[in-house]
Amino acid sequence: MHDRLEALWSAAPVRLALTDEDRAGRDLLVAWMRELEMRVDVDVVGNITGTWPAHATESPVMVGSHIDTVRTAGRFDGALGVLAGLECVAALAGERLRRPLAVSAFTDEEGSRFAPDMLGSLAFVGGMSAEDALAVTDRDGLTVGGELARIGYAGETSCPRPPPAAYVELHIEQGPVLEAAGVTIGAVTGVQGISWQELTITGQANHAGTTPMHLRHDAGFAAAEVAVAVRGLDVAVATVGRLDLHPDLVNVVPGSAVLTVDLRDTDDAVLSAAEKQLAARCAELAEAEGVELSWRRLARFEPVHFDPAMVDLVEEVARTQGRSVLRLPSGAGHDAQMLARVCPAAMVFVPSANGVSHNPAEHTSPGDLDAGVAVLLELVRRLAS
Amino acid sequence: MHDRLEALWSAAPVRLALTDEDRAGRDLLVAWMRELEMRVDVDVVGNITGTWPAHATESPVMVGSHIDTVRTAGRFDGALGVLAGLECVAALAGERLRRPLAVSAFTDEEGSRFAPDMLGSLAFVGGMSAEDALAVTDRDGLTVGGELARIGYAGETSCPRPPPAAYVELHIEQGPVLEAAGVTIGAVTGVQGISWQELTITGQANHAGTTPMHLRHDAGFAAAEVAVAVRGLDVAVATVGRLDLHPDLVNVVPGSAVLTVDLRDTDDAVLSAAEKQLAARCAELAEAEGVELSWRRLARFEPVHFDPAMVDLVEEVARTQGRSVLRLPSGAGHDAQMLARVCPAAMVFVPSANGVSHNPAEHTSPGDLDAGVAVLLELVRRLAS
Repeated sequence: MHDRLEALWSAAPVRLALTDEDRAGRDLLVAWMRELEMRVDVDVVGNITGTWPAHATESPVMVGSHIDTVRTAGRFDGALGVLAGLECVAALAGERLRRPLAVSAFTDEEGSRFAPDMLGSLAFVGGMSAEDALAVTDRDGLTVGGELARIGYAGETSCPRPPPAAYVELHIEQGPVLEAAGVTIGAVTGVQGISWQELTITGQANHAGTTPMHLRHDAGFAAAEVAVAVRGLDVAVATVGRLDLHPDLVNVVPGSAVLTVDLRDTDDAVLSAAEKQLAARCAELAEAEGVELSWRRLARFEPVHFDPAMVDLVEEVARTQGRSVLRLPSGAGHDAQMLARVCPAAMVFVPSANGVSHNPAEHTSPGDLDAGVAVLLELVRRLAS
Repeated sequence: MHDRLEALWSAAPVRLALTDEDRAGRDLLVAWMRELEMRVDVDVVGNITGTWPAHATESPVMVGSHIDTVRTAGRFDGALGVLAGLECVAALAGERLRRPLAVSAFTDEEGSRFAPDMLGSLAFVGGMSAEDALAVTDRDGLTVGGELARIGYAGETSCPRPPPAAYVELHIEQGPVLEAAGVTIGAVTGVQGISWQELTITGQANHAGTTPMHLRHDAGFAAAEVAVAVRGLDVAVATVGRLDLHPDLVNVVPGSAVLTVDLRDTDDAVLSAAEKQLAARCAELAEAEGVELSWRRLARFEPVHFDPAMVDLVEEVARTQGRSVLRLPSGAGHDAQMLARVCPAAMVFVPSANGVSHNPAEHTSPGDLDAGVAVLLELVRRLAS
């Protein structure tokens, strides 16, 4: 697996969904699945599923994650879960199992190019129609459908797919909790609820030298005030990740601004209250500056709680192997939360050095990676036996 | 002149310095100068000067401005002063004058692509060496020298140039003062001092869902706080016109931010105090968020006071023609402030509807435009007689 992680990184370290770089990663993955004598199915929204044995038609135990990345990607986010699935197939191919195995790489988990995130797994479980998913556009107006066709991954298998018997996903924590606790394995209890909104602020572009301060309708200033207000919201985490001004010139008062607000919490009531608090505060700021606001919802997922029996199983397997284990919620969204809608699902976390992710410095020690794969392998063995 | 303004707008409404669009405008201007039987000289930094009579070698009375624009351009900013110069040549060609006339269009007055602004006129008067001016780069690393050569306007005339006998510039006010006062002609007393700085903030890119708030080093949040602090500075006008985040994605804590700060005041001491106040505040904000700051000076011009005799002359000519006139400082920088370093210089303002400029809605009534040209013409006549 270490070699495959390295090969994927070497092929294209940054693989924004449905770019040429994503295609390069997909091509590698498909080649590896074929080497393992798996049947490869690509569905209409581009999710890749390898099945072993190749002729199997029963509901499989599925291991999955994604190989698309953010723009500031590290080596492990997503790729680990998919490549660990290949390890399981390689290790279990000689054993007698009751169920077939499947390994899936879901389209556009990150949502960095196409919103919402987890688009592929959402469509896989029927939470979004394939038609709607294919019509989603990026900033340049390119569609998921068009880009899938362009890179040769507009598959023919229908979507949504029949649910697997169970789903397990190995992922790096992407946060500092396991490392701080000195623990190797995280048994993930659920996933924070996510609210993504895009706010467009329209003011009036004007000359920065000649427009008196009291006559300004500065969309950039209002955007900055909103970004400061977001930090003050009463919610687990709150982020303004995008902020674009127009015309974005030193001597022009910004005429418009577009920014995104990412709010997350394990309690849906807290999340909803923060959304309301923010909307009210933004309306006040907009009135004071004389600018217009337009909100667009990019994504909204309620908090997810994984099947307690699956969480117990992760903890039990880890303990049986003599590994330290901690129950914790996931701060990030994951494909597992979509699969949890249709089958028992579980997630295994391994530590992230310094809690760093979405950054080329993302790191998990080889020993921790191996520990995660060993836990995943035993989980798959038990679920498939 | 109205036809020429229209023709220039039709050729390319937005003419960022040294782009293909700027070339299209320059080609038109040169053709018009030749139609008027002027000698056309292009200097090494691309300033275009038409001289009439073509064989003249004595110091001319120069009319000038610029034809480059910001990205959100209107019709009049810059173009008016250059095309009004052509009107003066056309009108005065039959008269017996003591001095020749010159009309100049200076390179990159706006500074929207290459900093500092007023780059061409700064080099024209020797305030910056031609070598330094040609080495200035845009955001993509393209140089003034390379782009001049690419569009065919790397001239052979040396720079700095010998000073003209006098310089006059007609320009729209780009602010609300004349309109609010119901006055047609502004006799410009001087130009606000300008401070342009670029601030790069370096934090740590990280996952927006998994990074606890207290562990963040969010460059975007720090940038927003700076933008809010800029609004509170004790200075005439203060603007954050550019603000770019990296990686600029919804679910990534911004790892770095670049923003510009444009401060202006007629009192240099006030300007300097505001710069110091901002630097101190930013240092506090950076320490609180755990981010690094790096400042780069893009431009710094002290306030300019035009020759009092020239300001008196503008007022006298306007009154003699029976026009309402008001003395006022300029909020924007202009090529005239550079020429004021080497010769008596004056500026004439005409009103801007609603004070709007750097915006396609920029408007001055035909009657006000004609009034401005009539004042300019009489000024040139007196200075050249």
